[in-house]
Amino acid sequence: MFTKLNRSRVFRDPLYGYISCEYKIIADLIDTKELQRLRRIRQLAGVGMVFQTAEHTRFTHSLGAYHMANLVIHNVDGMEKISEYEHVVFLISALLHDVGHGPYSHAFETTIDKSHEDITVSMILSPKTEIHNVLNIKEGLAEDVASVISHDGKFPLIEQLVSSQLDVDRMDYLSRDAYMTGATYGIIDYFRILRSMRIIDNKLVCKASGVHSIESYLMSRYHMYFQVYYHPVARSYEAVLESIYERIKDLSQKNYKFECNLTCFLNVINNNDDLESYLELDDAYVQGFIKQLEHSKDKTLSKLCSAILNRHLFKCIDLANEPEEAELEAIKNRFKDSDSKYFFKTVDAKGEAYKHSKKSDINDIKVLLPNGKIKSLDQYSPIIKSLVSSSYTEIHRIYYFED
Amino acid sequence: MFTKLNRSRVFRDPLYGYISCEYKIIADLIDTKELQRLRRIRQLAGVGMVFQTAEHTRFTHSLGAYHMANLVIHNVDGMEKISEYEHVVFLISALLHDVGHGPYSHAFETTIDKSHEDITVSMILSPKTEIHNVLNIKEGLAEDVASVISHDGKFPLIEQLVSSQLDVDRMDYLSRDAYMTGATYGIIDYFRILRSMRIIDNKLVCKASGVHSIESYLMSRYHMYFQVYYHPVARSYEAVLESIYERIKDLSQKNYKFECNLTCFLNVINNNDDLESYLELDDAYVQGFIKQLEHSKDKTLSKLCSAILNRHLFKCIDLANEPEEAELEAIKNRFKDSDSKYFFKTVDAKGEAYKHSKKSDINDIKVLLPNGKIKSLDQYSPIIKSLVSSSYTEIHRIYYFED
Amino acid sequence: MFTKLNRSRVFRDPLYGYISCEYKIIADLIDTKELQRLRRIRQLAGVGMVFQTAEHTRFTHSLGAYHMANLVIHNVDGMEKISEYEHVVFLISALLHDVGHGPYSHAFETTIDKSHEDITVSMILSPKTEIHNVLNIKEGLAEDVASVISHDGKFPLIEQLVSSQLDVDRMDYLSRDAYMTGATYGIIDYFRILRSMRIIDNKLVCKASGVHSIESYLMSRYHMYFQVYYHPVARSYEAVLESIYERIKDLSQKNYKFECNLTCFLNVINNNDDLESYLELDDAYVQGFIKQLEHSKDKTLSKLCSAILNRHLFKCIDLANEPEEAELEAIKNRFKDSDSKYFFKTVDAKGEAYKHSKKSDINDIKVLLPNGKIKSLDQYSPIIKSLVSSSYTEIHRIYYFED
Amino acid sequence: MFTKLNRSRVFRDPLYGYISCEYKIIADLIDTKELQRLRRIRQLAGVGMVFQTAEHTRFTHSLGAYHMANLVIHNVDGMEKISEYEHVVFLISALLHDVGHGPYSHAFETTIDKSHEDITVSMILSPKTEIHNVLNIKEGLAEDVASVISHDGKFPLIEQLVSSQLDVDRMDYLSRDAYMTGATYGIIDYFRILRSMRIIDNKLVCKASGVHSIESYLMSRYHMYFQVYYHPVARSYEAVLESIYERIKDLSQKNYKFECNLTCFLNVINNNDDLESYLELDDAYVQGFIKQLEHSKDKTLSKLCSAILNRHLFKCIDLANEPEEAELEAIKNRFKDSDSKYFFKTVDAKGEAYKHSKKSDINDIKVLLPNGKIKSLDQYSPIIKSLVSSSYTEIHRIYYFED
Repeated sequence: MFTKLNRSRVFRDPLYGYISCEYKIIADLIDTKELQRLRRIRQLAGVGMVFQTAEHTRFTHSLGAYHMANLVIHNVDGMEKISEYEHVVFLISALLHDVGHGPYSHAFETTIDKSHEDITVSMILSPKTEIHNVLNIKEGLAEDVASVISHDGKFPLIEQLVSSQLDVDRMDYLSRDAYMTGATYGIIDYFRILRSMRIIDNKLVCKASGVHSIESYLMSRYHMYFQVYYHPVARSYEAVLESIYERIKDLSQKNYKFECNLTCFLNVINNNDDLESYLELDDAYVQGFIKQLEHSKDKTLSKLCSAILNRHLFKCIDLANEPEEAELEAIKNRFKDSDSKYFFKTVDAKGEAYKHSKKSDINDIKVLLPNGKIKSLDQYSPIIKSLVSSSYTEIHRIYYFED
Repeated sequence: MFTKLNRSRVFRDPLYGYISCEYKIIADLIDTKELQRLRRIRQLAGVGMVFQTAEHTRFTHSLGAYHMANLVIHNVDGMEKISEYEHVVFLISALLHDVGHGPYSHAFETTIDKSHEDITVSMILSPKTEIHNVLNIKEGLAEDVASVISHDGKFPLIEQLVSSQLDVDRMDYLSRDAYMTGATYGIIDYFRILRSMRIIDNKLVCKASGVHSIESYLMSRYHMYFQVYYHPVARSYEAVLESIYERIKDLSQKNYKFECNLTCFLNVINNNDDLESYLELDDAYVQGFIKQLEHSKDKTLSKLCSAILNRHLFKCIDLANEPEEAELEAIKNRFKDSDSKYFFKTVDAKGEAYKHSKKSDINDIKVLLPNGKIKSLDQYSPIIKSLVSSSYTEIHRIYYFED
Repeated sequence: MFTKLNRSRVFRDPLYGYISCEYKIIADLIDTKELQRLRRIRQLAGVGMVFQTAEHTRFTHSLGAYHMANLVIHNVDGMEKISEYEHVVFLISALLHDVGHGPYSHAFETTIDKSHEDITVSMILSPKTEIHNVLNIKEGLAEDVASVISHDGKFPLIEQLVSSQLDVDRMDYLSRDAYMTGATYGIIDYFRILRSMRIIDNKLVCKASGVHSIESYLMSRYHMYFQVYYHPVARSYEAVLESIYERIKDLSQKNYKFECNLTCFLNVINNNDDLESYLELDDAYVQGFIKQLEHSKDKTLSKLCSAILNRHLFKCIDLANEPEEAELEAIKNRFKDSDSKYFFKTVDAKGEAYKHSKKSDINDIKVLLPNGKIKSLDQYSPIIKSLVSSSYTEIHRIYYFED
Repeated sequence: MFTKLNRSRVFRDPLYGYISCEYKIIADLIDTKELQRLRRIRQLAGVGMVFQTAEHTRFTHSLGAYHMANLVIHNVDGMEKISEYEHVVFLISALLHDVGHGPYSHAFETTIDKSHEDITVSMILSPKTEIHNVLNIKEGLAEDVASVISHDGKFPLIEQLVSSQLDVDRMDYLSRDAYMTGATYGIIDYFRILRSMRIIDNKLVCKASGVHSIESYLMSRYHMYFQVYYHPVARSYEAVLESIYERIKDLSQKNYKFECNLTCFLNVINNNDDLESYLELDDAYVQGFIKQLEHSKDKTLSKLCSAILNRHLFKCIDLANEPEEAELEAIKNRFKDSDSKYFFKTVDAKGEAYKHSKKSDINDIKVLLPNGKIKSLDQYSPIIKSLVSSSYTEIHRIYYFED
């Protein structure tokens, strides 16, 4: 149905040994400029300020997620009953799931008010992209992949495998980020997890005997969130970046004449469907304009850029440590006027070790008991229940600038 | 104060690279026959039936615990204020903490009704052992080391470091058992843990900023317990072994004439202070008599030995899986008469990821908050609290023989 | 043709993650008492005196060699053309190749003057062994496996894969011994090696583009020989052991009445076809009689046993370091009379990084050039040529006892 | 003498666990913009085209080389006799040794005809750089560090440790590149190497007993060269890049008006002392102009840029494979006219596993025999001798463009 390569194309990978492509369409997608662009966008953005060896990009992670999908196909009981067409849709969705990411994505999404998934879908459907042209060899394929990414329910199992509490995306990035940062608590036993999964009635379940490996995975995830992804300094870096993006947006709406060429960035901010401009954006683009705008005549902008370049980042107060009320009030008062809004941020986040989802069956991890019954993971495992219910996994912080 | 070697003695170790001894007394203790005997006693006993690569002995673990003590001395804030004498007491206690273990220790302790710690203390204090003679170079040293092992409160900090919820013993064995079995969830970030520890008022505390590494360690421990140490088959092996020990004990009290030489074993059972006999016991000794007693005229004994040798172990029913009451009753009824008590066992255990101890301050892990206050770990961390309070970490099983 | 298990039996392994058995016959062979006996015989014998963590047995290595054979079948180009029957013969041969090993095998083979391969063949063919009974389900199978082990040319490709310069035996043990000792130079990239192999005309060749991975493997092997297997102290231990075996043999021929039960050992020495006695021998058996014969009335024997037990091993002089002639002569003279022959040994060995074999095509590694021609590895690679021709890879040592 | 930080600054590193800075001057140097610029220059340049996970930068390697220097200071016998001043000069030299690298350095150095070491020296001595200002706190320090980098003989031991056959640079990059590419043959046992080194008469020697670890290191290096650094495709990428640089240089001399802003690049080409321009250059800069010059009106330039962007790289013929003479002639003839010189390149290189240096004592690795004599490594080790003398370690290739 899908053409296979004469000789499979092989990528060396320190986590898995080798990543192998057998389908021509996968190899062609890897070579598109949209996917190659991910080579210039780091996976961990601001986290690299703290964990300096985390220099890997979204490209290597995308290959990794593709490989994990391949492992699922070959190791999970029940996957053999799915059609080859769905296998390939799964592989492609895993490969492309992050292709819509912008540089320093977290701050970016806030500014353009559009998720990277939406942009991924645009790239897949737009007749102008190379990705689309590759997918076009088979009618309906682009639409089906887009449907998986946008979770619209046509392929519920694949949606679940690509993006849920326990998916090929997370299984690769937890392992990879741990390998790159040296954080041992991120190591997950993905082979054991795959062996405890099973497809029943087109849904993914986990056998009760393998729940421990899932618990271990969720704890890894929780620890990676708090130790790595939500590291106070990493988040401070992203908070400053967000302020820079906001200030640029605000100035552009006042027709400020920027001291450097920001055409593509402004195009995207003002019209987030301008894919051509979007594809020009990468880490170097952002680093480039920050360097130049350090000397902007706009004092706010120059101050923020300088904060990044000279590592004079925002200070962080963790509200969990119960700081003095008076002190907090004093800080908040300092940033009351509209010009200073860029220098003060409250950040609330949830560790997301696991979330029980009422509306969506797909998102829950289901446990298959020996007697054939099925339970939600958080009903089955008290540890996970405590992770879900506890405020402990929340973050409430204040970031502010201090001269 | 203690003589140092001209050139430190070095042991290669796959976990740490190298383990190094600088004190002559440590090198001398390693060469004693009591410690060398641990080369013949496997660390994981029956677990090796399931995880066949776990072939390491208590000897390599003892060196590892010593090395971990050395790492504590050189990396934990505040250890530099402890005297050299206490450092050496700590190193020796770590090295010797398991020297009293018998072969297949778990079953053994039940039978002789004496803990391995008690025997360790006897070996240290008895003038007949080589260990005692090495320690004797310094007056009071043997007594001080024994005092640490028996937790009598003279050196509370060292007691805590050698044996508590978070000690050099556990930090080595979790890492080592994980390395040997290939269980990735046992990997702990011991260096991060050491860096978050601090000695305050002669007590060990963990800085709040490092609590995540302790949580991660306790979760590792919990997973190792359920996935490895309490594996149903491994425990079945030990249940059969325990029955063999019991049956031998019961027969010996009836003056049964055994079909092979059991002198040392019987000496120990009948007089558990007979250290000389005790030192003859090792894994091979036990394997040896099991092989010979498979042909015993005592049917009970021969059946049990045969069960071990032919891997026809006890069946296991996990009560957590809510088996049918009627079925359970039927099984229990089968083993009612006194002769069949050897073929039916109930096993209750607690996963011990963490226990909050009311009586003992030493055993708790204390968390140092930024404001200088100190909390118990299970008050501070909801995840640990849920581990402590949950019945989920308990095991209730029935083991029984089926022809 | 061969029955498959309903659910494959899986062994966890820290090197490979999981080792999996699909054929019932493999699972049955693993459970035989002859293979289980290897759990009591350490892979590295005396090397464990120096690398104390090398506590793994021939059993785990045997499973590893089996697994490597499985990897060869599934990864080497051309293996898919071999019949299922030969696949299974290959898997079984890999699993059983070491089953004839005795305890502290090197010294043992010298004494009984029979190689472990010969004994393996006896075990396979003898109707009394459990192995034979398992193999017996298929006529001719036992004979075919024996034929592979004894290299009699019926299955040249399988012989080569099981025992040659580059075989599943070496690929597992180099990796495993490195993992267990922590010797990084033993790590080999076996997956890369498998990918560069190819079966042409029923012979194994290595593609020129993959020669570097073979060179790297051979250098690993060379370094493991000199750093680990031929470590002076490890070899001293085995030299003493060999003397003990010799002395026992000599005494038994003079009808000496030994101070402990040596029946099985003497049976084997005097009639090396006594398989039943042979199967009783293991590491613990040897350690046991050494401990008892330390108190033998025969002074030579007691001195040798005491040398082992108190680590007062033979001294070693490496002739490569050009010791003084006079000194050497003096030492040799000390051990001239017949009674002292047990206390002086010359040891010559070849590192065997690679040997070019004139008589046997099977043993050579062949390189396939891009133009289709085939060369011997040592003709193709100057580095290997220098390894083959150099005296550097030889060992010439004198071991002697000094009071 | 040098100020120490109150609390050492710690960098997490997956190879070493933690990299720690105790001296304030080291922390200050790390924060300079010249060193931070290395975060934007990948260590392996074109090799990343083949080994896509090799995304690490010269920055993380620089920290690693610094750490390795710290390990040398604390582990090599004799280093304790060197003064603290020299220790710090060593640490700084290790940290800064690569600071002069340009983007895609290999091609770059050819074009500007200046080595990165020269530029490093300029940066250290120029009063305009932040590095210089940090070093300036101590008179003569900048000059002394520059002296080490330029190998002018004032600190022969430190020169040797920073840059020779066996130096902190290579020890870090071999390990790191292996970790990042997943190439197991690059793993070196650096701890064992450090333990076999010794400083005698202010020179580095290696004890004969440790020569095997050095051999193993040199073989690793040799394999990394041929398998990774000289990979045909990686080198093809760099050959194209070199042609782009050349073409730009040639065009600029004819006052060609480029289609994009190349000011800094041209400044550097025409005046390679323009440090300010030099510091603007990084990987993104080069990638940026290649993307824009794909549409250049100069056909040669646009064709070359397109070759990079569309992975239509030069073909490679390895002369070692003895291609047909006629075919070679035909290819050469195609590229005879001056315009086509950019599309044909001969590449000769030496694997450099080890070179014996006649003029320089510093560069040789010396072996200390047990009798106190000293030999060159290639005299002592036949394997190394064969590496040095063999043409096997040479590369002779032709790269050419084919439409």
